[in-house]
Amino acid sequence: MNIPTKTVERLSTYRRILKIFLSEGKHRVYSHELAARVKVTPAQVRRDIMVIGYSGSPAQGYDVAGLRDYINGLLDPADEEAVVLTGVGHLGKALLAFFATRTKMPFFAAFDRDPAKTDRVIHGCRCHDIENIDKVLEGRRISVAIIAVPAASAQDAADRLIRAGARGILNFAPVKLRVPPGVIVEDVNITVLLEKVAFLARKEAAQKES
Amino acid sequence: MNIPTKTVERLSTYRRILKIFLSEGKHRVYSHELAARVKVTPAQVRRDIMVIGYSGSPAQGYDVAGLRDYINGLLDPADEEAVVLTGVGHLGKALLAFFATRTKMPFFAAFDRDPAKTDRVIHGCRCHDIENIDKVLEGRRISVAIIAVPAASAQDAADRLIRAGARGILNFAPVKLRVPPGVIVEDVNITVLLEKVAFLARKEAAQKES
Repeated sequence: MNIPTKTVERLSTYRRILKIFLSEGKHRVYSHELAARVKVTPAQVRRDIMVIGYSGSPAQGYDVAGLRDYINGLLDPADEEAVVLTGVGHLGKALLAFFATRTKMPFFAAFDRDPAKTDRVIHGCRCHDIENIDKVLEGRRISVAIIAVPAASAQDAADRLIRAGARGILNFAPVKLRVPPGVIVEDVNITVLLEKVAFLARKEAAQKES
Repeated sequence: MNIPTKTVERLSTYRRILKIFLSEGKHRVYSHELAARVKVTPAQVRRDIMVIGYSGSPAQGYDVAGLRDYINGLLDPADEEAVVLTGVGHLGKALLAFFATRTKMPFFAAFDRDPAKTDRVIHGCRCHDIENIDKVLEGRRISVAIIAVPAASAQDAADRLIRAGARGILNFAPVKLRVPPGVIVEDVNITVLLEKVAFLARKEAAQKES
């Protein structure tokens, strides 16, 4: 099945909203109800559900639990996959804390070069010396590796992670990584996002004044 | 000047690379050199530079310092603008630490409801009780407000921030915010990004095996 990237992002959001509906005792949902919560059009919701091949009647609404289970089947790994982290600084620690309570795709290991951070457990995750990455990850299937090291160390971290088997990288370092074909990289550059929002907000304000 | 959002993101990256070039003693740069570092096409670089109205000759390369200053003029606020943060949990603290050394758009204030976090300075930023937000921000121009509170408190934080004058929001809470027209919201949902990368990496692996 070829699901567009933007649809994958929305599926993740739909699933979160479906869980909220279920907890509220709601068992059937119309596309417009889901659309209102996700801030997309009802047509978009129906198109996404069609693309993933879930059968349901838009006229009578979708089965909330059924749709959630179907999305789970698409998004969640069949076997347990490991998420690993490189860089246990402020951001890395925040990510460990944030994901400590996740049951799916738990953090399997974290890596850093600072001896003050390694050989200990931080927010439930064991932190290792990055020199031992191959040994620690041997035989594990790595679904996603997160890079939260400083810019200057990011390429080295990526190279080591890819050698150790990582095929997906979520990169918080402000660096464009060089990776072999087939390795997925998603950049999250918080400075760029901050500057973008500031710029757009300023532009809105200027238009209002003029 | 109407600069597309995607161009604004790239300008922020160009500027970072131009600073690196300058520190390396490089004074003129060709579009293909900038393109290689940013991982876009040379044509894209030339188009972006044309869109912002910077005059330079692609054939002889662009003046590195001149282009950097020009982008600074577009991206940086004329007056000092304040960035504020709501939610001083793990993520909020990481953001304060990350931006503590920024000279442009420094964090002006942080807000939380937990008395253990308020009335103190964390990573150089004073943290206040969110009940005092109007008083603290009175007369300040807020360029961006960052929401790093739990999902259940995010809408309340947004409402308070907007009442206090915020016109741009970078939202880390997994909630779609309701905001009046003209308020810019950029969502950063780390869980969605993580699931997306994992899904795409799994798909790549499956295609390789088949």
